[in-house]
Amino acid sequence: MCKIDLNSDLGESFGAYKIGLDDRIIPLVSSANVACGLHAGDPTVMSKTVALCKANGASIGAHPGFPDLQGFGRRNLNMAPADVKAMITYQIGALDAFCKSQGIVLRHVKPHGALYNMAAKDEKLSAAICEAVYEYNPGLILLGLSGSLMLSEAKKIGLPCACEVFADRAYEDDGSLVARTKPGAVIKDEDEAAARVIGMIKNGTVRSINGNEIELCPDSVCVHGDSEKALMFVEKIRGEFLKEGIEICPLHEIIK
Amino acid sequence: MCKIDLNSDLGESFGAYKIGLDDRIIPLVSSANVACGLHAGDPTVMSKTVALCKANGASIGAHPGFPDLQGFGRRNLNMAPADVKAMITYQIGALDAFCKSQGIVLRHVKPHGALYNMAAKDEKLSAAICEAVYEYNPGLILLGLSGSLMLSEAKKIGLPCACEVFADRAYEDDGSLVARTKPGAVIKDEDEAAARVIGMIKNGTVRSINGNEIELCPDSVCVHGDSEKALMFVEKIRGEFLKEGIEICPLHEIIK
Amino acid sequence: MCKIDLNSDLGESFGAYKIGLDDRIIPLVSSANVACGLHAGDPTVMSKTVALCKANGASIGAHPGFPDLQGFGRRNLNMAPADVKAMITYQIGALDAFCKSQGIVLRHVKPHGALYNMAAKDEKLSAAICEAVYEYNPGLILLGLSGSLMLSEAKKIGLPCACEVFADRAYEDDGSLVARTKPGAVIKDEDEAAARVIGMIKNGTVRSINGNEIELCPDSVCVHGDSEKALMFVEKIRGEFLKEGIEICPLHEIIK
Amino acid sequence: MCKIDLNSDLGESFGAYKIGLDDRIIPLVSSANVACGLHAGDPTVMSKTVALCKANGASIGAHPGFPDLQGFGRRNLNMAPADVKAMITYQIGALDAFCKSQGIVLRHVKPHGALYNMAAKDEKLSAAICEAVYEYNPGLILLGLSGSLMLSEAKKIGLPCACEVFADRAYEDDGSLVARTKPGAVIKDEDEAAARVIGMIKNGTVRSINGNEIELCPDSVCVHGDSEKALMFVEKIRGEFLKEGIEICPLHEIIK
Repeated sequence: MCKIDLNSDLGESFGAYKIGLDDRIIPLVSSANVACGLHAGDPTVMSKTVALCKANGASIGAHPGFPDLQGFGRRNLNMAPADVKAMITYQIGALDAFCKSQGIVLRHVKPHGALYNMAAKDEKLSAAICEAVYEYNPGLILLGLSGSLMLSEAKKIGLPCACEVFADRAYEDDGSLVARTKPGAVIKDEDEAAARVIGMIKNGTVRSINGNEIELCPDSVCVHGDSEKALMFVEKIRGEFLKEGIEICPLHEIIK
Repeated sequence: MCKIDLNSDLGESFGAYKIGLDDRIIPLVSSANVACGLHAGDPTVMSKTVALCKANGASIGAHPGFPDLQGFGRRNLNMAPADVKAMITYQIGALDAFCKSQGIVLRHVKPHGALYNMAAKDEKLSAAICEAVYEYNPGLILLGLSGSLMLSEAKKIGLPCACEVFADRAYEDDGSLVARTKPGAVIKDEDEAAARVIGMIKNGTVRSINGNEIELCPDSVCVHGDSEKALMFVEKIRGEFLKEGIEICPLHEIIK
Repeated sequence: MCKIDLNSDLGESFGAYKIGLDDRIIPLVSSANVACGLHAGDPTVMSKTVALCKANGASIGAHPGFPDLQGFGRRNLNMAPADVKAMITYQIGALDAFCKSQGIVLRHVKPHGALYNMAAKDEKLSAAICEAVYEYNPGLILLGLSGSLMLSEAKKIGLPCACEVFADRAYEDDGSLVARTKPGAVIKDEDEAAARVIGMIKNGTVRSINGNEIELCPDSVCVHGDSEKALMFVEKIRGEFLKEGIEICPLHEIIK
Repeated sequence: MCKIDLNSDLGESFGAYKIGLDDRIIPLVSSANVACGLHAGDPTVMSKTVALCKANGASIGAHPGFPDLQGFGRRNLNMAPADVKAMITYQIGALDAFCKSQGIVLRHVKPHGALYNMAAKDEKLSAAICEAVYEYNPGLILLGLSGSLMLSEAKKIGLPCACEVFADRAYEDDGSLVARTKPGAVIKDEDEAAARVIGMIKNGTVRSINGNEIELCPDSVCVHGDSEKALMFVEKIRGEFLKEGIEICPLHEIIK
């Protein structure tokens, strides 16, 4: 039977600023990537988000990003790899503190936004991230873009890693995501998105934007909880998975 | 034989901004209170400071403060106790991540600046701090002002705690520090400062600013490493302690 | 004929974080207090907010607050008056830059949140704020709580000032606002709130929480645009003002 | 007679963190580029720096940078041009507020660090910066790298601009600075540096790192005040200029 993890980026509110329908999406996912206070989130939000995940049985991961609240971690920042490494260690430890205090285990790390995308194509950045995770806890799972340098660097040092795929994004022939600035980058038809992700899981392939069949090996599907529409799509693919006999379970039950 | 801990606030540089002669003071103290990135310090500085402490055998503590870099954590901020608790958890975890990654044990927590002084007289704030430390790791030692509410709150919940005294500060009759804005608040004569701290350690007493003998039970003396003069004073009291048969050792060898 | 200004705090979004229905409330008010990037707002938000005010004919004021984004400027911060003065100058200039660039005149300054409330009862803080405004531009109008020290300090140095009243807040006998933590602090009945504010404008009086008649001299009424309900209340009092022959006009047409 | 401006980056301290010997360098330069609180500086520092410049007769310019205090504005940040424009407006206005309050005229704008270097080669970024300056005050002088796109964009819209040269940096054949990561990027011999800058001023040429003669049209020389050595070099070139009949005067007396 096929198994897949459903992950979502959460805990992105900050002070008086609210983003995301966390209480609605958390019951629907198997893994939560929790912001760590640098690109989004604050200590109080982190504490509440970890509690909400624990109450709903969602597996918890750190979601570290660039120190750029104004840009929500989505702007490329030219940090030295040594600084990136320290920044990752910092954010993992900060989130893990809430897990420890609440008696729940931190399971994975997924870099956020610009850091995720830059590292996917930058060996030194990927190495810095992987070393930070490994040195902190070699049992943590690194969640990265399927086919990215982040995953190959993780494998090099023996860090467990998992492949993330996107239901609503088009792929280039090399397995990278089509940039959002290009036409066709986002799959807007929900039936098509659901069909694509099921195909990825069952067949390990997807059609690239150029119509070529490319290989993927999905461990986790990224979903969003920032709107009613996003939540309905998550409900929809959960239903489709059920029909197709695909079991939703957290990363640590998939990656051994 | 008397034992005492020498502690100093360290790792307070930030990015291109340098503060403190950390490489000079770390070899002279038994405990380092390392800033955690909110009032001072950044992830890269924290990583280097932990490495420097490890290399010199200094025991490491977290030194969490208010999120106020511009005010260096020295300005009172009216945070809700629940927010303070989360902020303490966050900072302890962030620092502990560097300790874990470098294979060294985090031993204590000493709140910084305005947070330290506010909590000394505020039961709810002290309770929030102590709960954060206890829930994260009940074996950590809370280092607070001798006679403060922070220490009594720690005792209430069974958190190990240690009394900090100051060589260069005058005391009120109630054991609190004379505010820096009052005349006589700072002891400028080094011989007097050294004599006072030895008296505290050997006799458990000191003269208040009003000339009354007050009781103290010192576990740790706070020293500074921000100038040549400060370093010379640390050398001086280390010499005096040797003459007087007072052994310098880290908190976890004093507090059992 | 009576004249009154309707003011609202605006431009409080930050990066990806949205707060307030600015495009809906701006057409309904005569004066906009625009956040200046320290407690809320960012340069891009400020630029857009000034443009929106210009398009709708709303008069623009700076709304400076403490450098505390996480606390939204609502937490007391113990800043030295000299630092407050510089911080006010900074924020006024930053906002005025967008006004100048867009060819519109900055008219007033209303301190935000904790700064507003602290200054109301603190002569030195009030003096620092008033001096900053006066030295930047002695023609700006300071908008402060009716009866507060902020207004008396403004008068001392010859800075134009205006009295702000609140439709939905109860008053103490001394004219200060009943703290939000006390029962009865907020007037929830909209008819009552509207009637109270009309009484303030027409008679210059209001009943305190203790039932005593106190005097007020309202130049401006603070309204909110953060929810549908808030917007409906603004529509309602605009209608009531029309019936009562109270004209809504910006501060600089009231304060000469 | 030749005229040249000597400029230096100043006001880069932040809160308790001190950088630069501002009180020593300000009397030696004709123009001060004052940090505006995003990559360095804070409102209190800005107020003091403007006062120091006024007292010493140094001409004042805004020195806006990326919102990256930890990186001191030296790390490339992928901001959208519209956000850069707003950020420049914000920082110019903030600094100008201190000038206005102290009765002194703001004369120029020099972008800082990574923003300066990125804009030199990016037309859209340069256009965003120039528009921000022009819309705020079309009489301000933009100070940029000789030969950069920043200057050509300024010329396009009629914004006065000035060419900056560096005494201690090697040049590529195209007039750009040799990257600091390349060998030979920095001229360490002070006599050579002084001779080079005098050659630039008198002849309008300099030898590139490849030995080719390239043309420059210097209006201003950048000098540093962060160490005793840097200060001595400034004294030295001031002496050389005197001998060579080169007059030091502020930008607004050079650019008409």
